[in-house]
Amino acid sequence: MTGLLLLLTLSANPSPRELACSLADEVGPRLSGSEGDAAAVRWAVEKMKQLGLANVHTEPVTVPHWVRGEERAELTAPISRQLAVTALGGSVATPDGGVEAEVLRVTTLEQLKALPVDQVKGRIVFYDKVMERLPSGKGYGDTVDVRRSGAAEAARKGAVASLIRTVGTGDARLPHTGGMRYEPDVPRIPGGALSIPDAELLRRTLERGPARLKLVLSPRALPDAESANVIGEVTGTAKPDEVVLLGAHLDAWDLGDGALDDAAGVAICLDVAQKLVGAPPKRTVRVVLFANEENGLRGARTYAQAHAGELQKHVAAIESDSGAGLASGVLYAVGPGAEKQLAPLRAPLAKLKVTAPKAGDAGGADTTQLPGVPQLELVQDRSRYFDIHHSADDTCDKIRADELEQASAVTLLVARHVANLEGDLGRLPQKSAPGK
Amino acid sequence: MTGLLLLLTLSANPSPRELACSLADEVGPRLSGSEGDAAAVRWAVEKMKQLGLANVHTEPVTVPHWVRGEERAELTAPISRQLAVTALGGSVATPDGGVEAEVLRVTTLEQLKALPVDQVKGRIVFYDKVMERLPSGKGYGDTVDVRRSGAAEAARKGAVASLIRTVGTGDARLPHTGGMRYEPDVPRIPGGALSIPDAELLRRTLERGPARLKLVLSPRALPDAESANVIGEVTGTAKPDEVVLLGAHLDAWDLGDGALDDAAGVAICLDVAQKLVGAPPKRTVRVVLFANEENGLRGARTYAQAHAGELQKHVAAIESDSGAGLASGVLYAVGPGAEKQLAPLRAPLAKLKVTAPKAGDAGGADTTQLPGVPQLELVQDRSRYFDIHHSADDTCDKIRADELEQASAVTLLVARHVANLEGDLGRLPQKSAPGK
Repeated sequence: MTGLLLLLTLSANPSPRELACSLADEVGPRLSGSEGDAAAVRWAVEKMKQLGLANVHTEPVTVPHWVRGEERAELTAPISRQLAVTALGGSVATPDGGVEAEVLRVTTLEQLKALPVDQVKGRIVFYDKVMERLPSGKGYGDTVDVRRSGAAEAARKGAVASLIRTVGTGDARLPHTGGMRYEPDVPRIPGGALSIPDAELLRRTLERGPARLKLVLSPRALPDAESANVIGEVTGTAKPDEVVLLGAHLDAWDLGDGALDDAAGVAICLDVAQKLVGAPPKRTVRVVLFANEENGLRGARTYAQAHAGELQKHVAAIESDSGAGLASGVLYAVGPGAEKQLAPLRAPLAKLKVTAPKAGDAGGADTTQLPGVPQLELVQDRSRYFDIHHSADDTCDKIRADELEQASAVTLLVARHVANLEGDLGRLPQKSAPGK
Repeated sequence: MTGLLLLLTLSANPSPRELACSLADEVGPRLSGSEGDAAAVRWAVEKMKQLGLANVHTEPVTVPHWVRGEERAELTAPISRQLAVTALGGSVATPDGGVEAEVLRVTTLEQLKALPVDQVKGRIVFYDKVMERLPSGKGYGDTVDVRRSGAAEAARKGAVASLIRTVGTGDARLPHTGGMRYEPDVPRIPGGALSIPDAELLRRTLERGPARLKLVLSPRALPDAESANVIGEVTGTAKPDEVVLLGAHLDAWDLGDGALDDAAGVAICLDVAQKLVGAPPKRTVRVVLFANEENGLRGARTYAQAHAGELQKHVAAIESDSGAGLASGVLYAVGPGAEKQLAPLRAPLAKLKVTAPKAGDAGGADTTQLPGVPQLELVQDRSRYFDIHHSADDTCDKIRADELEQASAVTLLVARHVANLEGDLGRLPQKSAPGK
C-alpha cells in the first residue's frame, strides 16, 4: 500500500462520488486494525491536506483487531448443499473440524427465549427474521436484534451455534456481516449469517422435515491495534473555538469496499469542507473521520474523552452514515426552544427538494457518543442501502453521482447555517444520547 | 443423495414453481457428469412417474465432465484487492502458482483482433464488453462472443490468460460462468469471468494507469461420464406415433441451483404433461429433459441420432429455456404455408395477454439440433434473467409462482393445439436449424 498515495490523480475539486470511490477503490476493505485501516488513515490525512483543510492531524485510537478466517456452511441432511455464510463480527471460531447439529428455526429472539432448554440444547439456532424494505431503512432497527444478541440468547439455552438470515434486503447470494455481542454469563458460541437465498432454502428445507447443518468458522480476535481518528478543520472567522462537527467513519467491514458504508459519508464531510475552505463561516467546521465505528465505537468514545473539555463548545454534530441516497429531510435533536434557529433553512432546503427540519431521533452511532451535543442528521433514501450493507456488494458502482452530490449539498447548507448562527442550538440532556 | 427421493413430499398436482423448486432445492447444482447430474436424472424419472407420464425411461448420453477448482483473482498493482472471479466452463487451469501479468483492456473481440501482437503478448486480456438489459434478453447474444471466443483470440496474440466482464446484467458481486471454446490452432489459455462490480473496479483502476493482476484457476477436465436424457410421454389418442416434443434441459451450471436455468423449463414441460395426462390430445406429447445443454449439447445430439428415423414424425418441438418470466408472445419457425395452422391460437393467447404467433428465430439450443422439425418458442420477459443466469444467484427464490404458472399455461395451450391439429406444420429446410 506504500506507493498508493502517489497514484491519486483526483481533480482539484473532486466530486463527492470521486472522493467516495477514491477511498472505496484505492483503499477498499478497512476493518479496524487491518492494513486497510492504516491505509485509510493515510488516505484521509493526505486527502484533507490536498483539499486545503487546516489543522490536519490524527488522534490515536486503540481498536479491536478481529480477523475473518475460513467460513463454510453445509446442509448435510436431508440434502447436501453448500450455503453462503459469513461470520458475524466478533464471533468466536467453531471447534476444530467445525460443528454439526440439527437446525432449530425461530423467527424472533422472543420465540427463542420462550422455548424450553431441551428444544434448543445441542442445536444450531437459525433466526429467520425478515427485514422489511422501507425508504427510511427502519426495518434494520426492527431486525438487527437477532444479529446482536442471537448467539448469546441461543447459548443461554445450550445451542452450539447461531445463524441468522442476513439482516438486509435484496436477493443476492452474499451474506451480510455486522457486529454481535456476547454476554459475560453465558458461553461464547459462533455466530454467522446466511445470505437471503440460502436462508430461504433452509426455510423451505425445514418445511419438509428436520435438517442438519455443518458450520466451519475460524475467525480470531488478535491483540488490540493502533488506529486513529483523522481530523481537519475549516477555521471559523469569528468564533474559531466553537465547533460544528461533521462526522463519518473511516473504517468499514472487510467483505466489501465500504463504498456506501461509509466512504459516502466520508465524501460528504470532505466535500462540504472543500466548499467551505474558500469562504469559511463564523464558527470552525471540524471534520472528524472516526475509527472503529463498525465493531466498537472506540473512535467516537476516544474522541469524547480526549475532547471532553471542549464538548461544551461543540454547537452541533452532523454525522453522515446513511449511504449515498437522495436526502428528503433533516432531523434534529437540539436544546429546548432551539428549533426556531433552524426555521430559516426551510426555503433553501425546499430548493433542494428537502422538507423543513423536523424533531426526531437525530444523530449517528459516533456523534451520539458526545454528551450534550445537539445532533443533526439527513434523512436519506435507504430503499436499496440494505441490499448491499456490510456485504461484498458494497462497492463504488452502487453510488450515483447526482444523488450523493445532492446529499452533500444539503449537508453543506445545514452545516454553514449552523456555523453562522448568531445564537446556538442549546444542549441536549445528557441521558438522551442513545448510543445507537 | 441416495435417500433423497423418499423425501419428496410434493402435492399430487404440484404447481410449476413447486416442480422447479423441487429440482433446484433438492438436487441443486448438476453440471454434466457430477453427482448432481446423476441425482437430477433420478429425480426426473421419479417425478415423471409420479405425475402419471407413460413410457418413462432414460436414454444414455456420454457427457463431458469438467470440474471447477480453486479460483482467485487479485489485483497486485497499483492496488491490492481480491476480485470475484470464476472459471469459464471448459477452461484449462493456470500454471502452478497462477499467472501474473499486466492487464490489457479491450471492449470487443474486434478491438483485440486489430491490435498488434506486441501489445497483447504476455498480457492478461480483459474484455470489458457491457451487456444491455432488455426484456428480450437480446443483449446476451450481442455480448457472449467474448465469453465463447475471447480466450482463443487472446491466445492467438500471445496473451497468458483471458478475463471477461460477466456476460450479464445486475450489480451483484457474483461472477457468471458459461461455455467457452478453444481453437485447434492456438494454445489453450485460462479463461475466467469477473463479477460486474469487479470489472468496473478494474476499469476505473486502468483509467488511472497500468494494472497487474494475478489469476489462479485450477479446473480440470475429467474423462467423459455417463448421463442420460430423461423421457416420458402422454400417449396420443389418434396418432400416437406422431410427436410434439416438449424440451428443457436437466443439467445446470455448478455455481447455483439452476432454478431459472433450467428448472423453470423442466417444470413447464412436466406441468404441461401432468395437465394433459387426464385428457390426452390426438398426438403424443413427449417430454425430453436433455442432458448437457450447458457445455456440450450432447443430450440433444444423441437424441437426434438415436431418433433420426422418427424425426419425420416430430410435428413440432417446443423448448423451454428462457427462465420463469411472463410470456408475452409465441415465435414459430414452420414449413412454408403452415403458419395458418397457428392462427386459431390468437384468441386464446390473447386471454393470457399473449400476442398472436409470429414468425421468428424460434427454437432453443437443444431442439434446433433436430433437423427439419418445426420449432415453437415462448417469448418470455428476460429483463432480470441475466442478473442471475449462470451464477450462484440462480436460486428458487427468484421464481415467481404466478409468472411461471402463466408461462406454463401458454405452453399448454400451444402444445395441445399442435398435438390436435388436423394438418401439420410442414418441415423446416434442414439448413435452417441454427445450432444456437
